[in-house]
Amino acid sequence: MQTVIWSQAQKVVIAPELPVVMIGERINPTGRRKMAAALESGDMTLIQEEAKRQVAAGAQVLDVNVGVSGLDEPALMVEAIKAVQAVTEVPLCLDSASPKALEAGLAVYQGKALVNSVNGEAAKLAEVLPLVARHQAAVVALTMDDQGIPRDVATRLAIAEKIVNEAAKLGIPAEDIVVDPLAMSVAADDQAGLAALTALATIREKLGVNQTTGASNISFGLPDRTAVNAVFLAMAVMNGCTCPITDPTNWDIRRALLISDLLLGKDAFGMNFITAFREVNPED
Amino acid sequence: MQTVIWSQAQKVVIAPELPVVMIGERINPTGRRKMAAALESGDMTLIQEEAKRQVAAGAQVLDVNVGVSGLDEPALMVEAIKAVQAVTEVPLCLDSASPKALEAGLAVYQGKALVNSVNGEAAKLAEVLPLVARHQAAVVALTMDDQGIPRDVATRLAIAEKIVNEAAKLGIPAEDIVVDPLAMSVAADDQAGLAALTALATIREKLGVNQTTGASNISFGLPDRTAVNAVFLAMAVMNGCTCPITDPTNWDIRRALLISDLLLGKDAFGMNFITAFREVNPED
Repeated sequence: MQTVIWSQAQKVVIAPELPVVMIGERINPTGRRKMAAALESGDMTLIQEEAKRQVAAGAQVLDVNVGVSGLDEPALMVEAIKAVQAVTEVPLCLDSASPKALEAGLAVYQGKALVNSVNGEAAKLAEVLPLVARHQAAVVALTMDDQGIPRDVATRLAIAEKIVNEAAKLGIPAEDIVVDPLAMSVAADDQAGLAALTALATIREKLGVNQTTGASNISFGLPDRTAVNAVFLAMAVMNGCTCPITDPTNWDIRRALLISDLLLGKDAFGMNFITAFREVNPED
Repeated sequence: MQTVIWSQAQKVVIAPELPVVMIGERINPTGRRKMAAALESGDMTLIQEEAKRQVAAGAQVLDVNVGVSGLDEPALMVEAIKAVQAVTEVPLCLDSASPKALEAGLAVYQGKALVNSVNGEAAKLAEVLPLVARHQAAVVALTMDDQGIPRDVATRLAIAEKIVNEAAKLGIPAEDIVVDPLAMSVAADDQAGLAALTALATIREKLGVNQTTGASNISFGLPDRTAVNAVFLAMAVMNGCTCPITDPTNWDIRRALLISDLLLGKDAFGMNFITAFREVNPED
């Protein structure tokens, strides 16, 4: 199944038979004071820098999150999208907990966006899916609902199915749904990695949809988090994650994804890996 | 299925439901001039050092290979086994292309050894399997035969099946066979990684045996080989490799295996990973 999104200049195809698509996660003020301060003062240059850096590091899609408590998020989303589209050509993933911010962003976005996110909560489904349908966007579907985040695989699958079915009622095809089975910390629950990886494999088998995963929750509370995230991403890709939301400027992470493509037969002659390695290590 | 081997002091259980067992690969003179020279002069101290270092780094089994062209390999195998068993307590994997060296080693080894290796060649089956049966050892079965190393999954499975069947005729149970599906270089064939990983998954599904893999062939000819090997090992473990033959003193490799166990729910509370991390990084 192919999820296709685009900007005015570029089309990106996400599909299991193609190399992994990295969605750059760095435009997000959560836990980043400098970016929050820049957004507060209406300064978009830091966001533009992050956009360019991530694209240079191989991001094919950029997540744009401008949620800072107390600020006018819809207005900021509009400004941020314009600012990012002024300096890069990649499609965007509009990331907000606020349907109003998503709506404002979709109104100005030039192309077919990925919307981040809907989940199985009744209110979310009712607010976000009509927006996605109206703008013919694609959408990230988190496997959580009014009962919270399930720990088991069967409930994750059931929520993903419910979202796919609700979306279909509004004319949103399964190709335009990117499921995120929500990896949780293995430090808090030592079966959480296996559950997330099994959820990916099960959702791939039963629904065939594209899937994303954030790698950072899995390692929360552990030492050497980048190493844990890198191994998790490789295993996640093997199990059906086709477009992780991650940090392409972290070479350990990017490298693990490039090597995953190579080991899964999706990098002809190893050229993607070798070229990136030579860029990052010009001396070697 | 459980493969159980032992020394006089320690029993090691290899099984899919248990953490990965690292078989230390460093006692091997191939490409290591110092070790070859030490063997030539009958000096076993370097081998003993490597034995201790690998056990300290988490090896639960040690591979012992003393093949140096022109030397008396059966005699050296006997000396090496005695030397290693004098300084460590872990079970050994007797590694030789020479059935005479394997026979000499099995005669002095104290315990139940892993023999490395048999393959599907008629001559190997005829020479090695009776030795394994007589000494009630376990054996590594490489999926190659008189036609060479197959590139496809079906032939690998067929050779593994043939070896399991031939072994059964001599009373060697499938539990005592550890299949190595022979990962080849992805630089030479960009589908080789996928083939090896699919072979692991297929052999696990069809035969249920334990499996090993050497990680180093996969990265031959590529830059950043350790990174490629580490990602390959993580994916291999996910697909059914339960006892890789690898270098436990390489932290990047050991870490990938520890994280694999953690992410697959085989490291209660993450204690194995966290303990090893603290040992290796006492400052962090």
